[in-house]
Amino acid sequence: MIEKKLRLSSLFNFYGNLLTDKQKEILEQYCDFDLSLGEIAENLKISRQAVYDTVKRAEKVLESYEDKLGLIAKFDLTIEKASLAIKEIDLIEAKINSSSEFNDLDQLEKVKQLINEIME
Amino acid sequence: MIEKKLRLSSLFNFYGNLLTDKQKEILEQYCDFDLSLGEIAENLKISRQAVYDTVKRAEKVLESYEDKLGLIAKFDLTIEKASLAIKEIDLIEAKINSSSEFNDLDQLEKVKQLINEIME
Repeated sequence: MIEKKLRLSSLFNFYGNLLTDKQKEILEQYCDFDLSLGEIAENLKISRQAVYDTVKRAEKVLESYEDKLGLIAKFDLTIEKASLAIKEIDLIEAKINSSSEFNDLDQLEKVKQLINEIME
Repeated sequence: MIEKKLRLSSLFNFYGNLLTDKQKEILEQYCDFDLSLGEIAENLKISRQAVYDTVKRAEKVLESYEDKLGLIAKFDLTIEKASLAIKEIDLIEAKINSSSEFNDLDQLEKVKQLINEIME
């Protein structure tokens, strides 16, 4: 359930501007402000069912954008490579801290390779 | 003119999958295969004007996606930060090559900062 909402938040974050104003309003309350369907219904003076239907419909629309563009998948990969690059740099820093010098060019090339992959 | 075509290619690369099949077919020939409007018209047995209109229309649609999502702008920023990070690493490598040691933690932090900014 939480995974499902995180996924929806991520979709909304990337593609939310392609939704209608009504869908956006409801998903903002649902994803960004973390309100319940009931609370949103009360806020907007519509039925809980109407809120639910809008969320489900919007979710479908957003997933279809991700199917076509795959930008979340691409961004996830960026995060993965960037995290690995940071981890390598942490290792280099640890080496410097323990022996106060560093000269492993291969390790630096590994970092560069990861950063280059981000740019592809 | 070339800048305009590069921009269209970039838009097509990011958002092309949101176009209709017909638009996609024409933009693929125009952007990816770099054919002229006349050549595309001949290939598809339609008028040069029809090809032109489709390209213009698709361009408008694609620009409106970028207006709403700004993913090209975001990716350009990623490229910029990643390039700066690579440049920093090149400087570190040059230091190691000239003095065969390196211990500047601040410089490494700078690289990490840039990579962290990519993940934002």
